[in-house]
Amino acid sequence: MKSWVRFRNADGRARFGALDGGQILEHAGEMFASPQPTGVTFARSDAALLAPCTPSKIVALWNNFHALGAKLGKSAPAHPLFLLKPASSLAGPDDAIQRPPHYEGRIAFEGELGIVIGRQCRDVPLSEVADCIAGYTCVNDVTAVDLMNENADFVQWCRAKGSDTFGCIGPAITTPFDWRSARVVTRVDGVERQNYPLSDMIFSPDEQVSLLSRDMTLCPGDVIACGTSLGVGSIKDGATVEIEIDGIGTLSNRLTANTVMEVTSR
Amino acid sequence: MKSWVRFRNADGRARFGALDGGQILEHAGEMFASPQPTGVTFARSDAALLAPCTPSKIVALWNNFHALGAKLGKSAPAHPLFLLKPASSLAGPDDAIQRPPHYEGRIAFEGELGIVIGRQCRDVPLSEVADCIAGYTCVNDVTAVDLMNENADFVQWCRAKGSDTFGCIGPAITTPFDWRSARVVTRVDGVERQNYPLSDMIFSPDEQVSLLSRDMTLCPGDVIACGTSLGVGSIKDGATVEIEIDGIGTLSNRLTANTVMEVTSR
Repeated sequence: MKSWVRFRNADGRARFGALDGGQILEHAGEMFASPQPTGVTFARSDAALLAPCTPSKIVALWNNFHALGAKLGKSAPAHPLFLLKPASSLAGPDDAIQRPPHYEGRIAFEGELGIVIGRQCRDVPLSEVADCIAGYTCVNDVTAVDLMNENADFVQWCRAKGSDTFGCIGPAITTPFDWRSARVVTRVDGVERQNYPLSDMIFSPDEQVSLLSRDMTLCPGDVIACGTSLGVGSIKDGATVEIEIDGIGTLSNRLTANTVMEVTSR
Repeated sequence: MKSWVRFRNADGRARFGALDGGQILEHAGEMFASPQPTGVTFARSDAALLAPCTPSKIVALWNNFHALGAKLGKSAPAHPLFLLKPASSLAGPDDAIQRPPHYEGRIAFEGELGIVIGRQCRDVPLSEVADCIAGYTCVNDVTAVDLMNENADFVQWCRAKGSDTFGCIGPAITTPFDWRSARVVTRVDGVERQNYPLSDMIFSPDEQVSLLSRDMTLCPGDVIACGTSLGVGSIKDGATVEIEIDGIGTLSNRLTANTVMEVTSR
């Protein structure tokens, strides 16, 4: 099993490498194309982890778990239903989730599995999908809930979910990963709020990549957020959300009121 | 008035420059940050124009014209309503619009004005927006209409509008540009289908940039497609769509059945 991370050390340079216990074995080249070990090792405790990749887009699924669909009274879709979160929404491990300026409403967490694309792909048959997946990560698909239905004519998915720092991913990209036996656990300030099995997915990761690659070219580093299940809720300013997936790790982010930005921007 | 283009010459290298009659005055550096003339001149007729910028995202507005809103019976929104088209949807002047694989349904054109962002901006007050706009371009916001409402529970905006080559922009980025006196004219195989005044916009370009920059950071080269008005319709494979805006130019793209891709991908 390999777990890839991006990180910044004391010198401030962004690097990447493979986790090995308490160490990071630095690599060079492209993470998804035969990276080479540099021979340099960093202590994980000294390294500030960054988002493990820099997606050009995050494709975020809606209604991809049988349990949540049943609760909402929605039938399983025939094709993955999705919105896009922009590159500018990216946040990494321990980054603050920033409350959007001028928004005082509810902010929700959604713990999810993330598929990380390893090579450019378009209209890939199911039999060839495995080569396109670099690995898996944890996602917090943060949502400004009250923006979603602010307008009666148009559900504002991209606005509610596209704000800066609302696409939290990390801490690592792990491969291989047996999603069939793994669970997503979400904790808010240490209290468990979600704990659901990935085996309940409507579209498997392979099916998602194959079907979504019909809709648009997927690029190396792009992330597919597989959708969430039961237990989603909102968080108060200052709360810390942890998304933990066995075998991948724990992604932790704290919601900040972002008062500094408010003051400087007016 | 300046009109910036990106282009490829016989040597295949991507370059950029300022239009000057039948010539392109090549520049170097960053298009949006004090580019310097290289002294080299190319004949426009020898140059294959590229998309004039490479957006990290295209923010595409819905219901931003009073005339179309009135026809659809929708009231004016309080904040711009938008979806996102990904970077992978980009197409430039004379690029083919590719029918998505496995999709046999209707494909629609939408002629629009595009705002090109010139500098990174977040939560910009209206009084400072002018500095953030690099110029204006023409947009064809291509849509796979029958995907939009395929699922009863979820309007598939990003899927229907996010396919490769569905974000056509060009031919140039023009500044200054008096949108108040300009019209968008769309022709399909030479027949006029849209001809509407930009003065009918609900949110002005400055208002769009200011309000959208509250929702997410806008980056240099990002494009805001200002929404369309009356006259939208669908096109047959082989049809050529031209979007013309006085002072900017004409963006022309032809819809291809994309049979080659279909054959090779199965």
